Amino acid sequence: MSALESDAYREFRRDLHRHPEPAWREFYTTARIVEELRKRDLTELHVGRDALATDDRMNVPDDDELAEWEQRARDAGADPDIVDGLSGGYTGCVAVAERGDGPVVALRVDIDALPIRESDEGDHAPAAKGFRSENEGFMHACGHDAHATMGLGTLDAVLDSDFAGTLKVFFQPGEEQVAGGKPMAESGHLDDVEYLYAVHVGLDHPSGEVVCGIDGFLAVRHFLAEFTGEPAHAGARPEQGRNAVQAMAAAVQNLYAIPRHADGPTRVNAGLVGGGTATNIVPEESYIEGELRGGTTELAAYMSDHADRILESAAAMHDCEVDVATKGEAPSATSDDALARIVGDVAGATAGVTEIVDSDDLGGSEDATYLMNRVQENGGLACYVGVGTDHPGGHHTSTFDVVEGDIQVGIDVLSGAILRVAERRPRADARDR
Amino acid sequence: MSALESDAYREFRRDLHRHPEPAWREFYTTARIVEELRKRDLTELHVGRDALATDDRMNVPDDDELAEWEQRARDAGADPDIVDGLSGGYTGCVAVAERGDGPVVALRVDIDALPIRESDEGDHAPAAKGFRSENEGFMHACGHDAHATMGLGTLDAVLDSDFAGTLKVFFQPGEEQVAGGKPMAESGHLDDVEYLYAVHVGLDHPSGEVVCGIDGFLAVRHFLAEFTGEPAHAGARPEQGRNAVQAMAAAVQNLYAIPRHADGPTRVNAGLVGGGTATNIVPEESYIEGELRGGTTELAAYMSDHADRILESAAAMHDCEVDVATKGEAPSATSDDALARIVGDVAGATAGVTEIVDSDDLGGSEDATYLMNRVQENGGLACYVGVGTDHPGGHHTSTFDVVEGDIQVGIDVLSGAILRVAERRPRADARDR
Amino acid sequence: MSALESDAYREFRRDLHRHPEPAWREFYTTARIVEELRKRDLTELHVGRDALATDDRMNVPDDDELAEWEQRARDAGADPDIVDGLSGGYTGCVAVAERGDGPVVALRVDIDALPIRESDEGDHAPAAKGFRSENEGFMHACGHDAHATMGLGTLDAVLDSDFAGTLKVFFQPGEEQVAGGKPMAESGHLDDVEYLYAVHVGLDHPSGEVVCGIDGFLAVRHFLAEFTGEPAHAGARPEQGRNAVQAMAAAVQNLYAIPRHADGPTRVNAGLVGGGTATNIVPEESYIEGELRGGTTELAAYMSDHADRILESAAAMHDCEVDVATKGEAPSATSDDALARIVGDVAGATAGVTEIVDSDDLGGSEDATYLMNRVQENGGLACYVGVGTDHPGGHHTSTFDVVEGDIQVGIDVLSGAILRVAERRPRADARDR
Amino acid sequence: MSALESDAYREFRRDLHRHPEPAWREFYTTARIVEELRKRDLTELHVGRDALATDDRMNVPDDDELAEWEQRARDAGADPDIVDGLSGGYTGCVAVAERGDGPVVALRVDIDALPIRESDEGDHAPAAKGFRSENEGFMHACGHDAHATMGLGTLDAVLDSDFAGTLKVFFQPGEEQVAGGKPMAESGHLDDVEYLYAVHVGLDHPSGEVVCGIDGFLAVRHFLAEFTGEPAHAGARPEQGRNAVQAMAAAVQNLYAIPRHADGPTRVNAGLVGGGTATNIVPEESYIEGELRGGTTELAAYMSDHADRILESAAAMHDCEVDVATKGEAPSATSDDALARIVGDVAGATAGVTEIVDSDDLGGSEDATYLMNRVQENGGLACYVGVGTDHPGGHHTSTFDVVEGDIQVGIDVLSGAILRVAERRPRADARDR
Repeated sequence: MSALESDAYREFRRDLHRHPEPAWREFYTTARIVEELRKRDLTELHVGRDALATDDRMNVPDDDELAEWEQRARDAGADPDIVDGLSGGYTGCVAVAERGDGPVVALRVDIDALPIRESDEGDHAPAAKGFRSENEGFMHACGHDAHATMGLGTLDAVLDSDFAGTLKVFFQPGEEQVAGGKPMAESGHLDDVEYLYAVHVGLDHPSGEVVCGIDGFLAVRHFLAEFTGEPAHAGARPEQGRNAVQAMAAAVQNLYAIPRHADGPTRVNAGLVGGGTATNIVPEESYIEGELRGGTTELAAYMSDHADRILESAAAMHDCEVDVATKGEAPSATSDDALARIVGDVAGATAGVTEIVDSDDLGGSEDATYLMNRVQENGGLACYVGVGTDHPGGHHTSTFDVVEGDIQVGIDVLSGAILRVAERRPRADARDR
Repeated sequence: MSALESDAYREFRRDLHRHPEPAWREFYTTARIVEELRKRDLTELHVGRDALATDDRMNVPDDDELAEWEQRARDAGADPDIVDGLSGGYTGCVAVAERGDGPVVALRVDIDALPIRESDEGDHAPAAKGFRSENEGFMHACGHDAHATMGLGTLDAVLDSDFAGTLKVFFQPGEEQVAGGKPMAESGHLDDVEYLYAVHVGLDHPSGEVVCGIDGFLAVRHFLAEFTGEPAHAGARPEQGRNAVQAMAAAVQNLYAIPRHADGPTRVNAGLVGGGTATNIVPEESYIEGELRGGTTELAAYMSDHADRILESAAAMHDCEVDVATKGEAPSATSDDALARIVGDVAGATAGVTEIVDSDDLGGSEDATYLMNRVQENGGLACYVGVGTDHPGGHHTSTFDVVEGDIQVGIDVLSGAILRVAERRPRADARDR
Repeated sequence: MSALESDAYREFRRDLHRHPEPAWREFYTTARIVEELRKRDLTELHVGRDALATDDRMNVPDDDELAEWEQRARDAGADPDIVDGLSGGYTGCVAVAERGDGPVVALRVDIDALPIRESDEGDHAPAAKGFRSENEGFMHACGHDAHATMGLGTLDAVLDSDFAGTLKVFFQPGEEQVAGGKPMAESGHLDDVEYLYAVHVGLDHPSGEVVCGIDGFLAVRHFLAEFTGEPAHAGARPEQGRNAVQAMAAAVQNLYAIPRHADGPTRVNAGLVGGGTATNIVPEESYIEGELRGGTTELAAYMSDHADRILESAAAMHDCEVDVATKGEAPSATSDDALARIVGDVAGATAGVTEIVDSDDLGGSEDATYLMNRVQENGGLACYVGVGTDHPGGHHTSTFDVVEGDIQVGIDVLSGAILRVAERRPRADARDR
Repeated sequence: MSALESDAYREFRRDLHRHPEPAWREFYTTARIVEELRKRDLTELHVGRDALATDDRMNVPDDDELAEWEQRARDAGADPDIVDGLSGGYTGCVAVAERGDGPVVALRVDIDALPIRESDEGDHAPAAKGFRSENEGFMHACGHDAHATMGLGTLDAVLDSDFAGTLKVFFQPGEEQVAGGKPMAESGHLDDVEYLYAVHVGLDHPSGEVVCGIDGFLAVRHFLAEFTGEPAHAGARPEQGRNAVQAMAAAVQNLYAIPRHADGPTRVNAGLVGGGTATNIVPEESYIEGELRGGTTELAAYMSDHADRILESAAAMHDCEVDVATKGEAPSATSDDALARIVGDVAGATAGVTEIVDSDDLGGSEDATYLMNRVQENGGLACYVGVGTDHPGGHHTSTFDVVEGDIQVGIDVLSGAILRVAERRPRADARDR
């Protein structure tokens, strides 16, 4: 697939689309990416454990779950040697190509899928054209198959050019659970990066639009709070129970009542709750899977601090214990104007681009922000780029799909923007940020 | 099995034990009982629809669930013609034997099982002796296999005697969910009954003890409250949600806070709760499966009235709807002293009985109370009899078992007590209650 | 008033009735009792500090409040020297009369009043006859003016008799707030008492009835929980507040939801709550004045332990502090049958008594229980006696009143019962309790 | 005081400062303003009932309270004839001066005070200089005394000029409770106004600063929710109570948990709550005095709708009733840029002004917004002007004070801005808003 035409990218995207895998279970996906990368002339290729700060992985499934998906990847034809190296849920990789003197430029793409059953209706292209999900109940319903393909295509385009500098492409696992951004940001591979691009298709922007700098990332923390009390017969010995459902209910009531903050928006949701075993048993266990968000990283931290205190107090109130685990996390971030302008310039000259959108608010969360923040803390610049596409269903719905031709638009814009910064003197902008 | 020795009863009990079936799914159990009853010289035999006020059945499973259990019964060798008649979850039966002038005396036994996985350890007799549950995940963990056998045995003993009167044996489905007592009580078959016995094995009384009159039945209502709101993206559009988990939490907090009642004990439990779909979606649905009890039928009604209001208000508070269904129900009841004394007299002269316990409190709920109340309302007498047995595990645990010899003790005591009231002038006691 | 006719007792009662004083403010009341006691031939007279375990006093008002009531007592003509000794809220007294060999017998009467405005209607006898409360807003609405008079009258009757033994009369302050029983029980004066009587008029028993042994005392704890947070402008800086009203509300919701107890009745009430300063300020302070009760001392302790935990957790949940103080407390207690039978025998022979009631349940709380328990722990016997009276209004209402002639009935029954136990060999019953 | 020097304004301000009066009790204040206005050459002077849409008055105190303040005003020397006309709490007035052809321009100033005890420390100028509040417990702690004086001074300055047009000065009562803006806005006097200025001193801007257009008014609703249940003895008959404190607590918990709104800031505060009578009585009554706010009028309405539903449901949940009354209300509003620019131009040329601040956010609520909205709905322009002053204590604190010289700055800026719009062709800006 080096020296590539669009057909090959289309086939690659469809291959990934047929094998959607959720966080830390991207065995087939990573293996296929690595297979392709090995065909390129790379300086370094870091896979799995070598691409991650492994201790920072969040929400890793249990061994049985991992083993099941690993086997599924093998059964689907993934390279067994590569999969061996990913075993235990160490997915994702970082490709590095050094091409002479020049800045270190990075592109981050995400590769994971969602627990959504894909439409099998005739008007859903993947179903009609035979590349519908083969992992029933899971689906690339947010375009990460296209993102991964753009990562490969952008690498190819840069390798084919007179680019002078170093290009790093981060193929990140676990974005949907905001679980993979931090371990990649902390892996060390980002430490020398001076310019970082991240990309997303769609987001309600039609084909032809390019958004030069997305902002409005809500910082977020996903948590799982597990309450433990003591069961008892609710009729005969109610006083012997320590009621984990009462603790959970007190927590829910008070979580939503965390004081609003004058500095900006905050959010809280107890999205998934449960508890108890039978009508006549005082509930011994309960849980809340929820999220806390803020318009800034500080606001999310404010919510998180309050939530921790409330969860602890609600447990204590009913003589229960609670274990609160962070299952995913992402800060807020801001795209740098200087880089956004470069993307706008490049996009303006790119075939297929009909409208340049200066900026837009995500209004949700994304853990590319970990990587953006890290680069910016080191004095570099970062920009989150939107590549429009006519998507029939909304993101995270069973009929989501992308216009495959837009993948090439993304490749052209991203590779163009990478080349453009390499023409500048390294770190020049960074210095005057 | 008419003209029976204990071996036959033992085999019959073990057959039922191997095929435990929960409420309204007692297809095999009812079929086997009916097969045996048909061998007896009965005046009437009412099966399924004919044994029940069918509209009063509570907590009937859906058709798929019923069909699955019906098929399982057929596969296990239940008489297909009998099962045909039970189709749709019309289980249980009433046997009637008229034997000349005399009072109408009834015995009520229950026949259903529990959703508990039976122990497969070597020290658990059913496992060791090869009659462990063949319906994995379900178990006769409360002795209803023994009760059904006692029903049959008592009938045999009375038929073998010079009993003058009418004997009715009620083989009741769905006691564990307090779902079957009401439809049997309302069936009409109880309307002419002057004396009613009900029986339970064990209850922490060892082999050799007979309890002449159990009281302290907590009246109970099982309910299922299902809340419905509106989903929304918790980050982007929190205000568009109508949060069913907030509604549920408000209900839980306030259900437990129903004012105590000076007239006696009350109970409330939100035993099983859940709601929501994902951390980032405002929960659209939630539920509470719970129970309300009282030391008297009035106290349970007090709790029930408050609970209905709280559930409605909690839903309204969060702009949700709630559907509250009664899944099971039983009143309180009291054993009549006059009948208890008769049981005591008979038991005192019964082989194998070493201790007579005057009375005991159940401290839980039982829907035999529906039948007891009905008989008493008509001027008759009722008594709930305990037959001790050394049970290794507690009731409703995976190692519960009975001493099979105690089944004969139960048969002897119950048939003796039935004969004894037939010697009295009909309704004499009833008149002076 | 020694060698007394009923007129003198009536005047004494009316004097107290005109000067009702609440807990620890019984300056006038104590002074008047002490004045009268000084006229008797007593062995010892312990007043104020000498009658109390001073550290055990609960709910003592602040100095200003005490000073105001002390001055009011002086203005009303209380003996200034006696009041000097009561200064600081050390009210109540213990009279001791030794009369030769014999058991130590005690009578406890309470002397405090309630914060209720007395009716000034013409059909309210105290208003019509000119002895309505002169402390506007306070009233003897529970008959403690009659009790104090019975204490004096009973002492007189015993002193007039051939009683052989020691009689102690405890004039207890602060019963309405269950605040004075403990310091009297712990004063040491009760340690040698072998027989204790306590008395109450009315309790819905009409004139002519005597209740020989009241039981069903709910153990109780009055508490005051004061929450402290941090104020903030609710519009401009809601996040800077630490909301004491949210803490209070969470506490209220969960206090009422303390699990019911199978061993008997429990009670909880957040009877008086408040918080905040203005609509636009996040509330900095709030409070709950409440009570916890149980059918036994253990059940009240169970409620109290849960409440403490809930109050602490509710404060912590909203980052507030809470200070929880016990303002009053009383255990449960049981009247001894042996002593109750004596009262019954005596009452049966007393003029004016038309019906003997074996026993009754108080259904409320009383801190005579501290004294009863203390005597019983030492091997003695205790009995709480009810003296019926036709009271027009209910207890604790503005039209409560007693039939003054029933005071003499109480004196006769109590003195008779005291004489009767002195005829028995000391401690005989105690041994076989 | 026409043809006035600053000394007279200072004395007038100090007179008002000595007589601070809260909403609808501004008898002295209104009388003094009217006395002064009568000395001017006005076309119309509308006082009390004639200045208000009387049905729209909110939070009017009861008759006793009004009568007490009315008497106080008379005692302080207010003109009795004028006070007669204000009787019943109809305070405030509108002065109208027609001066030839030209636009209708209006100025709104507020005149009420706060329930705050004024500092009597030597470093608090009003205390040191002898014009501390004579209405103990009330204080001009937000500068409305200065506002009223600016209203008078601005009128004088315009009357002294060659102004061609109509000037209306609205002296508004009850701003602190957002209770007086609506009845003035609905009075009809505003209907022909083309340009409206409102003014506030301080707001953390020092002397010398002028803020040309304040925005960020939070729309607000003050409410009083009164819950009514049924009392009962908490020990003897807890089930007979209908607990108004439980209802209130449920409401508080759920009010704070109203879902956040993605369109902007929302606020809720249960600022003042209370309930119950005694520890041992199930509380019959309780209340919440609170507020609901939003960054827009729509957001405040969103909060208000949710709050109404929650209050109703919380009452229903505990079988109580609730009465919810609106005690004050104000929408959001925006200053018009065109008018703000005029203020900036004028201020830039005004002596004593050292810095022009383009705009600022109030971050709180103000019912001048009712008047601003009304003018803008009619096609006119409105601008809220800030006049800086070095205030030692914060607004609404006991040491708040203004630099009296800044009153003249306010008069100069406001009168200059009024003259400037009169030079423009009427409605020109309005057309292109």
